[in-house]
Amino acid sequence: MKVENLIGNRFKEKPSDCVIDSHALMIRGGYIKGVANGIYSLYNPTRRITRKIEQIIREEMDAIEGQEVLFPVVLPGSLWEESGRFTAVGSELVRFKDRGDTPMVLGMTHEEASVQLVRDYATTYTRYPFMIYQIQTKFRDEARPRAGLIRVREFTMKDGYSFHTSQEDLEKYYNVCFRAYERIFARAGIPDVIAVKSDSGMMGGSVSHEFMMITPIGEDSIAICDSCDYKANMEAAQCIVENKNELPLAELTKVETPGVTDIPSLAKFLGISEAQTCKAVVYQKNMTDEYVVVFIRGDLDVNETKLTNALGENIHPADITPDCGLHAGFIGAVGLDREKFTILFDSSLKGIDNLACGANEDDRHYTGFNIERDYGFVEYQDLAKIVDGGICPVCGKHSIRIVRGIEVGNIFQLGTKYTKSMDMTYTDANGEQQYPIMGCYGIGVGRLAASVCEHFHDQYGPIWPITIAPWQVEVCCLRADDAEVKSCADGLYAALEQAGIDTLYDDRDIRAGAMFSDADLLGAPIRVIVSPKNLAQGKVEIVTRDKSVTIMAEKDEALEQTLELVRSMTREIEAKVPDRKKAFAD
Amino acid sequence: MKVENLIGNRFKEKPSDCVIDSHALMIRGGYIKGVANGIYSLYNPTRRITRKIEQIIREEMDAIEGQEVLFPVVLPGSLWEESGRFTAVGSELVRFKDRGDTPMVLGMTHEEASVQLVRDYATTYTRYPFMIYQIQTKFRDEARPRAGLIRVREFTMKDGYSFHTSQEDLEKYYNVCFRAYERIFARAGIPDVIAVKSDSGMMGGSVSHEFMMITPIGEDSIAICDSCDYKANMEAAQCIVENKNELPLAELTKVETPGVTDIPSLAKFLGISEAQTCKAVVYQKNMTDEYVVVFIRGDLDVNETKLTNALGENIHPADITPDCGLHAGFIGAVGLDREKFTILFDSSLKGIDNLACGANEDDRHYTGFNIERDYGFVEYQDLAKIVDGGICPVCGKHSIRIVRGIEVGNIFQLGTKYTKSMDMTYTDANGEQQYPIMGCYGIGVGRLAASVCEHFHDQYGPIWPITIAPWQVEVCCLRADDAEVKSCADGLYAALEQAGIDTLYDDRDIRAGAMFSDADLLGAPIRVIVSPKNLAQGKVEIVTRDKSVTIMAEKDEALEQTLELVRSMTREIEAKVPDRKKAFAD
Repeated sequence: MKVENLIGNRFKEKPSDCVIDSHALMIRGGYIKGVANGIYSLYNPTRRITRKIEQIIREEMDAIEGQEVLFPVVLPGSLWEESGRFTAVGSELVRFKDRGDTPMVLGMTHEEASVQLVRDYATTYTRYPFMIYQIQTKFRDEARPRAGLIRVREFTMKDGYSFHTSQEDLEKYYNVCFRAYERIFARAGIPDVIAVKSDSGMMGGSVSHEFMMITPIGEDSIAICDSCDYKANMEAAQCIVENKNELPLAELTKVETPGVTDIPSLAKFLGISEAQTCKAVVYQKNMTDEYVVVFIRGDLDVNETKLTNALGENIHPADITPDCGLHAGFIGAVGLDREKFTILFDSSLKGIDNLACGANEDDRHYTGFNIERDYGFVEYQDLAKIVDGGICPVCGKHSIRIVRGIEVGNIFQLGTKYTKSMDMTYTDANGEQQYPIMGCYGIGVGRLAASVCEHFHDQYGPIWPITIAPWQVEVCCLRADDAEVKSCADGLYAALEQAGIDTLYDDRDIRAGAMFSDADLLGAPIRVIVSPKNLAQGKVEIVTRDKSVTIMAEKDEALEQTLELVRSMTREIEAKVPDRKKAFAD
Repeated sequence: MKVENLIGNRFKEKPSDCVIDSHALMIRGGYIKGVANGIYSLYNPTRRITRKIEQIIREEMDAIEGQEVLFPVVLPGSLWEESGRFTAVGSELVRFKDRGDTPMVLGMTHEEASVQLVRDYATTYTRYPFMIYQIQTKFRDEARPRAGLIRVREFTMKDGYSFHTSQEDLEKYYNVCFRAYERIFARAGIPDVIAVKSDSGMMGGSVSHEFMMITPIGEDSIAICDSCDYKANMEAAQCIVENKNELPLAELTKVETPGVTDIPSLAKFLGISEAQTCKAVVYQKNMTDEYVVVFIRGDLDVNETKLTNALGENIHPADITPDCGLHAGFIGAVGLDREKFTILFDSSLKGIDNLACGANEDDRHYTGFNIERDYGFVEYQDLAKIVDGGICPVCGKHSIRIVRGIEVGNIFQLGTKYTKSMDMTYTDANGEQQYPIMGCYGIGVGRLAASVCEHFHDQYGPIWPITIAPWQVEVCCLRADDAEVKSCADGLYAALEQAGIDTLYDDRDIRAGAMFSDADLLGAPIRVIVSPKNLAQGKVEIVTRDKSVTIMAEKDEALEQTLELVRSMTREIEAKVPDRKKAFAD
């Protein structure tokens, strides 16, 4: 394609509403255009990228016996009522009524549709296992779309659903799919994506993994152990602390602490460390507004996902009213109404004596608080956020590092949540009716494209990996008015296209600087520059977008050397793709 | 892929709700599954077909300089307000409010989105012409979905939009796209699709064509001239009649016609032909309920689309109330209240004398009605339906044939309807602001697949053209328990896949009859049968699904002969694809 004909504006100024680089570059490079909040149209360069990503995904899904299908975007509400999600899911699920007044939803995920598609088919054990997948538009009415294609309301997703007759069989396939996902990300140019254990959230099920691309602008926090192989989403990472008590047991003593309403002030006021205090954090249950008081070591924070899972219901930070019975800033366990409040203790408080804590009256705290002696027996629960430098729950070393990442894929062991609720059964070998066990597997196509851009860019534009680049090569014709230059560049463009290389051709009559700025924004990994100066010496310049390779090729060898560079850059990516068979041996 | 693993049920019984063959076969063959009224999930065989159709469309659109983009399914209502269609389109447009209470719609076509994507870019004439297209899910809340994938509410569509600086340039590109469409249908195996002039309806614009696959089950009627090349949709076809008056002019005479309330009775009662009567057909305007009386030659019918276009507003058949001033069954032009009613005359009445018509009182008609003498000057309009055996408006012969067809694609010259309403302008060579002229080009992917099935099937299943078949070849292993048979069939399956042929493999331990029934339903155009009987003579049987070719191949030559058959069947289709360059010379 000629740059001259390419639809879309390219410009230098960073748009003021772009916080992250990939968003700004994809706007500046004519990749995407906002249509509504969190809803974009994709220009041709992005569609070329997503087509290539989709093809990689297809090949990997087909290689693990996936069967591509297509579910509808618009689904009947009755299908979501079968699973209970029609009411259970919040306002991110778009609901509307059709012209016949039938409730409909926009599919934000397709577990229900997948069960509906196969439940009349997979009625006997001999038809298992199998996996179906689609690549289709989804809509989630996100409250806060952000960061360009990273978090949007409408997106293209590959979602796959596998069905099994045993947990073992699901786990075996789950590992196969895990390896396929590693291959997909490696083939897309980001082999360093890591898989972390995650909280399954509203998807149900137990074991699940998120595939994370590590980047400071990621919206997820991940705990990584530098000593062993442990990796987990902050939401799922177990927080382990060591408490050493070397002081003799003190008496429970009420002290005046006027205006001391937070942990840092309390520690300073008493001359102790924050880890020697017992912090109260208060929430309310969404359904009933009942107060939930969580006690936690003063230097740690509550992980709200763990708390939600522990309670089995959703919560929000408390609104502490004057008459609710809680003294904000002075809340402690001793004397707290156990009937009125749900009271939880984090594991971090286990085995510490002589804590400082609130005394449940204004301007008073206790010192010398010993939980078992002064409050009674408690069941400690893991409710704290893991911290940088914390203890690894696997190897036990103080080797946890917290990094940020973008979730580019996820896999879930769903269990029988959907097959039970939607009454999908099969007859097993003994003639008994059983519920199939499901797994599900997602990858956001547009988010992956934007993540790769975030990973590989400089201040001038994206540096696309050759496997998903909109164009592998751009031919720049400097001085198209010079007949010899034009003829040479025309020839190279035609020959590259002929050789099956996606080639962009810039033969506009513009300054070299403007041409290269556009080329930087369009991010072809290889650039072939035909200029009067080099051509006078019989040369053509071949450079990579990342500037790691510069070749002054003889004019007659320029085509072959470009093709060889395409091949070597492709090989470089392929070398990092894990072997598919390795997965089956796991 | 092995048939054993293919998701989807196949069965013999025709589902009771299927009226047309392709619908029944696509249900019986495990191609589609209904999810809601007019909403289907596609099983793997259909997804394979639509992928191939999409690839053909892409190649043809790219070849005529189309740039693939992607518009959102969910669009802001404000965008449709810009064009006026937010209110102008009826309940087939799904409207809902998002979580922020913003009105949104589901895209049923993307003219607005295409203008939004390019109006900041194409601000100067040097950036024209260009064409953008997408292949994307659309939703139209049809009142009466029917016939499987032929008329659905959710569907995948290729829609393209071209932008031009002159009508001449649009027409030039329109012809190029016309040829590309002929190529697409020919490559998909149905070269005999015909292009007919059509009514542009709600799309606006003037010239448009529908690409029709002729089939008795089609829902559109098409007028074709057997003498010249004229083809038009019934909605658009001009109705021409010849009236000969050889009788002397009679007097206008009122006659008693008790109980004679329709044209056949009147003609019989008076002993004249229906063509000698003047029929009144009454409608009401949707907005005001005002009556519209159309006079037309008694043997012809009103074409409501022509009438709607002539009035510029929608109409419905009239409810003739006792006090409305019309005498149902006896309505005539003489004495009809011209202030109260909109009165129109069809061209078929031009030049006939001595008509019989209603006298606007019960049980009375006139004879000897002469329009100019008894009513006055009228402007005749073309409001009649063209008839089988009617006069061709191009060659003038009585050679019109009415056939039925399925619309598999359409192209429109849109003009400036959207660019004007959405204020998209460019600066022309003289520095003046101008509105670009648009064309738009649609193909329904799923409908095309179903239409091909309707065109090529027998009672046992579809007969897919090799270019879009889900599998080009099916290997049938009869008696998989025979080691030699199994080994030969396994080898052929592996070798065909290795050669890049989409191959289906049936090695189930079932009866030959059951295996062939499934193969018929799955419709691979070539079948390779490995059986103990033939193998004992060193032979493998190769047959085409349409039974036109049967080859008893030597075992060692079976692979090469199958490949040659794939090639020759592909060549046969390619031979009917019109040359792309031919279009540019038009």
